[in-house]
Amino acid sequence: MTTPADASGTGPVDLKTLTISVLGGTGPQGRGLARRFAQAGLTVVIGSRTEDKGAATGADLAAATGGAVTGTDNLGAAEAGDVVLVVVPWEGHDALLESVKPALAGKVVVDCVNPLGFDKQGAYALKVAEGSATEQAAAILSESTVVGAFHNVSATLLEDPDVASVETDVLVLGDDRAATDLVQALADVIPGVRGVYGGRTRNAHQVEALTANLISINRRYKAHAGVRVTDV
Amino acid sequence: MTTPADASGTGPVDLKTLTISVLGGTGPQGRGLARRFAQAGLTVVIGSRTEDKGAATGADLAAATGGAVTGTDNLGAAEAGDVVLVVVPWEGHDALLESVKPALAGKVVVDCVNPLGFDKQGAYALKVAEGSATEQAAAILSESTVVGAFHNVSATLLEDPDVASVETDVLVLGDDRAATDLVQALADVIPGVRGVYGGRTRNAHQVEALTANLISINRRYKAHAGVRVTDV
Repeated sequence: MTTPADASGTGPVDLKTLTISVLGGTGPQGRGLARRFAQAGLTVVIGSRTEDKGAATGADLAAATGGAVTGTDNLGAAEAGDVVLVVVPWEGHDALLESVKPALAGKVVVDCVNPLGFDKQGAYALKVAEGSATEQAAAILSESTVVGAFHNVSATLLEDPDVASVETDVLVLGDDRAATDLVQALADVIPGVRGVYGGRTRNAHQVEALTANLISINRRYKAHAGVRVTDV
Repeated sequence: MTTPADASGTGPVDLKTLTISVLGGTGPQGRGLARRFAQAGLTVVIGSRTEDKGAATGADLAAATGGAVTGTDNLGAAEAGDVVLVVVPWEGHDALLESVKPALAGKVVVDCVNPLGFDKQGAYALKVAEGSATEQAAAILSESTVVGAFHNVSATLLEDPDVASVETDVLVLGDDRAATDLVQALADVIPGVRGVYGGRTRNAHQVEALTANLISINRRYKAHAGVRVTDV
């Protein structure tokens, strides 16, 4: 699970030769993932709605990790990235992707968005016309290879510098083997995390929606719950 | 997680005083759960479409486990059970529940059904008008307390007498605390299994549908995958 082949099957991709961009990288989940990638020695570009906010978060993370993190606006980050994570709020997910679509052509795009609603009883899964955020991204980004991943990882744990190891698996969903292998390897760089192939894009909805259950579990057990797949 | 209180809060329910019925108990999943409950010393009644088939499976399991297992038709099993598991195929789920509804009034009903479709690319989640099998059961069984559970447990492992410990958590979904506590305790009787509260009934869909992902994982990794919740 740790040696992805590139699309031509000639060997594993060295993640350190790639730039990893995080659109919506100024929110807790995006910041947390960027922090962990930077700590692993990867080159990271934070994207934000404004260049100033992106640059500020990039500078903060560079100072905190000693890693190669910069920041700019979402379009600049989309252009800079070889692999581009989408960690934006569900509201505006479609509009953001439309706005950066040309910059993402030919790239692996990792959708990390959970379409959830919240009320007094907690979190619940929203209905998505395309089936899931991942499928919406795939429908919009017809020139990109879309993978779903990192849905269920606690932002609190990712962002906590005292948490050395984040004990969870990342289910990686997609229809392109080279792309899912690459994203599994990306997940594997975070100590404690393991990237596990989780099925095709059409089965992304339930993995996104499972975050609502983890929120319920966190409330009941005062935990930062994650998921491990057994027997794998 | 192992000492459920009864509805009046006067103390834990002793599962050994209850009869556990398994509707659809002649299929692999139902048989596997019945086997494990019987091994744990619980009294189990298998239900089937015909009394003969139910009785035969009950006799087989009694011989295999040395436990208190009998079998009959689904209506007889619904009448006999204090806690009634529904482990029938998705096709006919609604009709079966309608047919045994009066016998289930006032009881805890545990829906274990995964509405899945299968094609050349594997398994996928079916759309359910009520949202999930659990919610469909709750809509039909208005006089019962419906809980969703046991969706993701490998039938192969449950049925294998050489598997001493089934390494998985069971996510238990429901809106009634006493009922979810009881079903968590029921899960806990299976060695290796841990019952974990997984959220309200409205969040059952994704846990049912996650079985499609586990089927994909099983195919990719040649595994009998289960799920553990971390930090709980």
